[in-house]
Amino acid sequence: GDAGEEDEIEDPWQDEEYFGSYSTLRLHLEMLSDRSRTETYRRVVVSNRASLRNKAVMDLGCGTGIISLFCAQLAQPSVVYAVEASAMAEYTRQLVRQNGCEEVIRVLQGRGEDIQLPGKVDVLVSEWMGNCLVFEFMVESVLSARDRWLREGGVMWPSSAALALAPCQAHDYFAEKMAFWERPYGLDFTPLQPLAQQEFFTKPKFSHVMEPSDCLASPRHVISLNMYTLQIKDLEEITGQFDFPVETSGTFHGFTAWFAVYFESLDAGGTTVELNTGPNSEPTHWKQTLFMLDQPVSLNTGSSVTGTIVLRRNPVWRRHMSVTLSWNISGDADNWCPQSGTKTFPMWR
Amino acid sequence: GDAGEEDEIEDPWQDEEYFGSYSTLRLHLEMLSDRSRTETYRRVVVSNRASLRNKAVMDLGCGTGIISLFCAQLAQPSVVYAVEASAMAEYTRQLVRQNGCEEVIRVLQGRGEDIQLPGKVDVLVSEWMGNCLVFEFMVESVLSARDRWLREGGVMWPSSAALALAPCQAHDYFAEKMAFWERPYGLDFTPLQPLAQQEFFTKPKFSHVMEPSDCLASPRHVISLNMYTLQIKDLEEITGQFDFPVETSGTFHGFTAWFAVYFESLDAGGTTVELNTGPNSEPTHWKQTLFMLDQPVSLNTGSSVTGTIVLRRNPVWRRHMSVTLSWNISGDADNWCPQSGTKTFPMWR
Ligand SMILES: [Ca+2]
Ligand SMILES: [Ca+2]
Repeated sequence: GDAGEEDEIEDPWQDEEYFGSYSTLRLHLEMLSDRSRTETYRRVVVSNRASLRNKAVMDLGCGTGIISLFCAQLAQPSVVYAVEASAMAEYTRQLVRQNGCEEVIRVLQGRGEDIQLPGKVDVLVSEWMGNCLVFEFMVESVLSARDRWLREGGVMWPSSAALALAPCQAHDYFAEKMAFWERPYGLDFTPLQPLAQQEFFTKPKFSHVMEPSDCLASPRHVISLNMYTLQIKDLEEITGQFDFPVETSGTFHGFTAWFAVYFESLDAGGTTVELNTGPNSEPTHWKQTLFMLDQPVSLNTGSSVTGTIVLRRNPVWRRHMSVTLSWNISGDADNWCPQSGTKTFPMWR
Repeated sequence: GDAGEEDEIEDPWQDEEYFGSYSTLRLHLEMLSDRSRTETYRRVVVSNRASLRNKAVMDLGCGTGIISLFCAQLAQPSVVYAVEASAMAEYTRQLVRQNGCEEVIRVLQGRGEDIQLPGKVDVLVSEWMGNCLVFEFMVESVLSARDRWLREGGVMWPSSAALALAPCQAHDYFAEKMAFWERPYGLDFTPLQPLAQQEFFTKPKFSHVMEPSDCLASPRHVISLNMYTLQIKDLEEITGQFDFPVETSGTFHGFTAWFAVYFESLDAGGTTVELNTGPNSEPTHWKQTLFMLDQPVSLNTGSSVTGTIVLRRNPVWRRHMSVTLSWNISGDADNWCPQSGTKTFPMWR
C-alpha cells in the first residue's frame, strides 16, 4: 500500500470485519449447507467413534458448534472445548443446550491465540481452510492453539493439507468478460478491453466452477502442509513447483487452484478421511479459484508447462496474500518458441 | 437511523459511492449482457427510425453510450447528447470515436440536474429503472432533465412505467433460509430461526427468480407512473392497492414485485414497445424482488388477498426507500378467520 493507506491502518488483522462477518448467519448457513464439507467432518468423527472415548477435544473456530455436536452426539469424548471468537458463541451455547450436550461441550468465546483451557487436549479439530487453502490465515490461530494446547502425541484434524493446481481453459469466463467487447450489438467496444483486463483478470476469480474437461493437464499437488510441523513463520512465503505435461490440446487461459485436506485416524493403521474441493469431487462452497493470464496461449499435447507458485502473505494486511505464478511452455511442436510469463495476483491486497 | 448514524451524514445522495460504482465496468457489463433490456432499447430506435430523422435526443445516464450509438447508427438524429455523470464518460467518448459517431453524439460528463445543453431536445431517453422500479431514484435526475430540456410536445422514453405485484410461493427460499434450521444433520438448530428471520426476511430479496407457477394469483399493476406528468415530489410516497383472487391453492410466502416500462411511438398510432421484467417475460438482470412474510399462510382458491403497497422514499438517504405491504385475506372456506398483516421492508435503510 501507499503511504496514505498505511497511515490509516488501525487493525491490520481487520478483526472487527472478519469476526463481524461470522456473527451473522449468512456465512454459517453457507458452510452448513455445504454437505460435502460438513458430512466429511461427521465422517471423521464417526470413523473415530471408539477412539474418541474419554478424549479431550478442542474445536477451534467452532461457529455454530456443528463439529462439537457431532463429537458429543456420535462419540463419547470427556470434554469438547468449542472455541469461537465471534458473537455467534452466544448462540452456540444455546444450540449446545437445545441438543442436550451441555455436560460435554464447553463453549468458550475468544480467539485461538488467547483462549485459556483447564488442560491440554488430545485432538485439535478445526475447519480453517479458505480460498487457495490459506486465505484469511485462520490457520495461524490453529497453529498457535496447537503449540499451546495440543498434548505431545495429540492429533490434528486436518492432519495435512495440499494445494492442487492445473493449467486450464476458461472459454466461458473469457468470452463473458473479454471477448464480449469485440462486437456487442454490432458495435466495436474494444477500447474497453484494457479496462476489462484490469478489472476482471488482475485478481483471482473466487467461486470458479471448473469442468474437469477444462483441465489441459492432470492436476498436481504443488504445495503440501504438515499440520504437526508447520510453523507460523512458514506462512510468510509458501512455494511450490510444477511440471504439467499437456494432455489435451486447447487454449491455456490460466491456472485453477483448489485444496484437499486429510484427517488421519486416531488408531495406527486406521483409514484417512479426505476432503477434496477439486473439480472431480463433490462440489463444496469453496468451489475453485481461477487465475487468468493476460493473454490466452494455444497449447498442444506434447508440450509442457513448468514453473513455480509463491503465496506471499501481505506484511501489513495479515489476512491477505498475493499469489505469483511463473510459467514456461516448452516442447510444442507447432510453436518452437518457448513462451514464458509471470503474474502476481493480489488476494485482495 | 440512530443519532450516531445521522451525525455522520455528509452526502445523503451517496454520489461518490453511486457514481463510483458506474465508473468501473462491472455494472455496465451486467447491463449490456442483459440482451432483453438492451435489444428492447434498440427495437425502440429501429421502430422509430424514420421519425428520429433530424431530431435532437438526450440519452441521460448513458453509461457506455449504447443507446446513443443505436440512435446514431440506426437512425439519423441531428444530435444526441450522451450525458453521463460517472468517470465512464471518458471511455464513452472513445467508443463514440471508435464507432465513427463523433459527428452526431456529444458526450457530456455531468449530472442530469446540472447539465447545460445548447437547446431543448425532442426525445429524452434513459434507462433509469432500478429494483421495484424506482430504487436508487435515478428517476429524479430524469424528471429534472425533462423539466429543463424536453421541448413542449417532446417524447419521453420510457413514456410510462408500472410496478407489478403478485402473492406467491417461495418454497425453495423458505427451505434454504428458514426450514433448514429444523433438523440439519440430525440436530435441532431452531434457536437460530429468529436470527434467520431477522437476517434474511427483514429486507426484500433482490434478484429473485420466480417461477410463473409460484404465483398464487394473476399479477396486477399496482402502481402506474406517467413520465410526462410525474413530479419529483410525487416520489416521496407512492401508493398502490391490490385485490388478488386466489387462483392456485398453495403457501403464501410473500409478495413478488417487478416492473414494466412502455416506449410510445414518435408517430401517432405507431406501436408501443414494452420492456417487461416479470416471470413470464425474457429474463433480465433485474430479475424480480421478493418480500417474505414473517409467517407463511396457507391459501385456498376462493379466498382473496387485498391490501396496499406504499413506497416511502427515505427522507435522509435519498437513494433509499421502504416498502410497506399491508394485506388482508378473506373468503377462505377452510379458514373463516380473516388474516391480515403489515410489514415494512427497508431498501436498504
Ligand atoms: Ca473457512
Ligand atoms: Ca438501472
